[in-house]
Amino acid sequence: MNTIDPSKVAQELRESVKNTLATECLKLKIVGFLVGDNPASITYANYTKDACIAVGIEFDLIKLNRIDLENEIVKANDDDDVHGIFIYYPIFNNEQDTYLKNLVSPKKDIEGLTMYWNQKLYQNKRFDDEEMTIRSLVPCTPLAIEKLLYCAGISEENKFSSKTVTIFNRSEVVGRPLAHMLSNDSAKVYSFDEDGPLLFEDGKVKEVSLSREEALKLSDIVITGVPSRSFNKVKVSELKDDVICLNFSAFANFEESVKDHAKVFIPRVGPLTVAMCLNNALHLYKSFHG
Amino acid sequence: MNTIDPSKVAQELRESVKNTLATECLKLKIVGFLVGDNPASITYANYTKDACIAVGIEFDLIKLNRIDLENEIVKANDDDDVHGIFIYYPIFNNEQDTYLKNLVSPKKDIEGLTMYWNQKLYQNKRFDDEEMTIRSLVPCTPLAIEKLLYCAGISEENKFSSKTVTIFNRSEVVGRPLAHMLSNDSAKVYSFDEDGPLLFEDGKVKEVSLSREEALKLSDIVITGVPSRSFNKVKVSELKDDVICLNFSAFANFEESVKDHAKVFIPRVGPLTVAMCLNNALHLYKSFHG
Repeated sequence: MNTIDPSKVAQELRESVKNTLATECLKLKIVGFLVGDNPASITYANYTKDACIAVGIEFDLIKLNRIDLENEIVKANDDDDVHGIFIYYPIFNNEQDTYLKNLVSPKKDIEGLTMYWNQKLYQNKRFDDEEMTIRSLVPCTPLAIEKLLYCAGISEENKFSSKTVTIFNRSEVVGRPLAHMLSNDSAKVYSFDEDGPLLFEDGKVKEVSLSREEALKLSDIVITGVPSRSFNKVKVSELKDDVICLNFSAFANFEESVKDHAKVFIPRVGPLTVAMCLNNALHLYKSFHG
Repeated sequence: MNTIDPSKVAQELRESVKNTLATECLKLKIVGFLVGDNPASITYANYTKDACIAVGIEFDLIKLNRIDLENEIVKANDDDDVHGIFIYYPIFNNEQDTYLKNLVSPKKDIEGLTMYWNQKLYQNKRFDDEEMTIRSLVPCTPLAIEKLLYCAGISEENKFSSKTVTIFNRSEVVGRPLAHMLSNDSAKVYSFDEDGPLLFEDGKVKEVSLSREEALKLSDIVITGVPSRSFNKVKVSELKDDVICLNFSAFANFEESVKDHAKVFIPRVGPLTVAMCLNNALHLYKSFHG
């Protein structure tokens, strides 16, 4: 059994961001917009605030009414003193939240939630400019997952060449960008959602008909992100030997015994996601604001 | 009783588009992307095809697999011979469809479904350029509704000054853009969805607490767009005298007797929506492709 704790990986990344900021004397400011009194949002807001301050980024937590958020995002986009924006969703908990995510300037989108950056990833455009000097931003959770897979023994040199991956989740926020990202890096990815499987391979997406059991029997890496207690948890008997398993859902998506069977088991991603946002903030600052 | 048939208004608008195209010798081409075999999508695709051809716009109906749509949208965006794009939703019937809507170039977004144009409307930016020569595009269904309200006796000169409007629907596609559009044009708009009411007034959105009954008693115009049979239909007893009533849902949202009570009753919008898309296509062509 070999379990990876994302907190430790996050700690190293935060140290690296902190050192770069200090060494290069960079002064970054991030604003966080907090709406309502949802305890989870308040906890997350304070967590991001502490994380920013700990690495030396100025952080301004702004509490406001949901109907004022749209105008405040526009103001923050136009404010040269603001270099990154956190928003603690859900706000309206409907499609208006997607609108708000995309209202954030891509240059300040430290979470990587705008379609601007998704589109780069989906079309495997690794740079934002013709001169290929500015690397495209990658959404923070898929990026955190990739980083954890490297920690689990995937070679950063060969990337995911000859690796088969199954992902249970095809959301626009994590599952689909992650499938594209891994297949851009040479993996063969079976992506499952309620609607069935799709295959991401060689920069293309293909319809396939295979069962979850068939996909799992082929997979070197299994990633779960099903936000439901009723998901039929992945069992040891479905998995290859030497498999790497990672769950990013708040619910356990693997049977308990998978921890002992898997070559590496990664039970959560959360702490590294915020550290990735700080790293993204640094990247966006150097690319657009420096 | 005074019922307005949107087909007649649509006919006039199509004639006007046809005349402009002929008089100014404009050659427009629109492509429609049809995925799957949903009968409603096929019917709508053929309807839009016929509508284009009838006014003298070249129309190319492309049938394809859902997983090829993303690349085909990118190609159509880059193709100088294509001036407008229709997509017959649903495609994936999840948040990926929102991604696809926004992948369409705003310059070819004849339906007005991209956030690019929504954002202009939400911030009351009536022009797309600094020189104020290119008018911002308005989504086709809200635009069709406004047009029908003018047909119902609202003064195009005074617009919605001193008018109170209640709208049941706050979707990103119709209800919210419509509320902004009417309030930009001086209306006081109570917008209801499952989440309760909001007031759109003087370019601002405000939280309010009033009941549906209170809002209806104040309203000169009542607009419904609730896609459900279980909606508690609006009754005559809830309405002012001389009210204008419009339903854009596929389900009846008013009691049958409202037809006889209302000053003007507009039972549907659909046919005018497509005519508005053709008008939008002409506007986009002249603004960006001419």
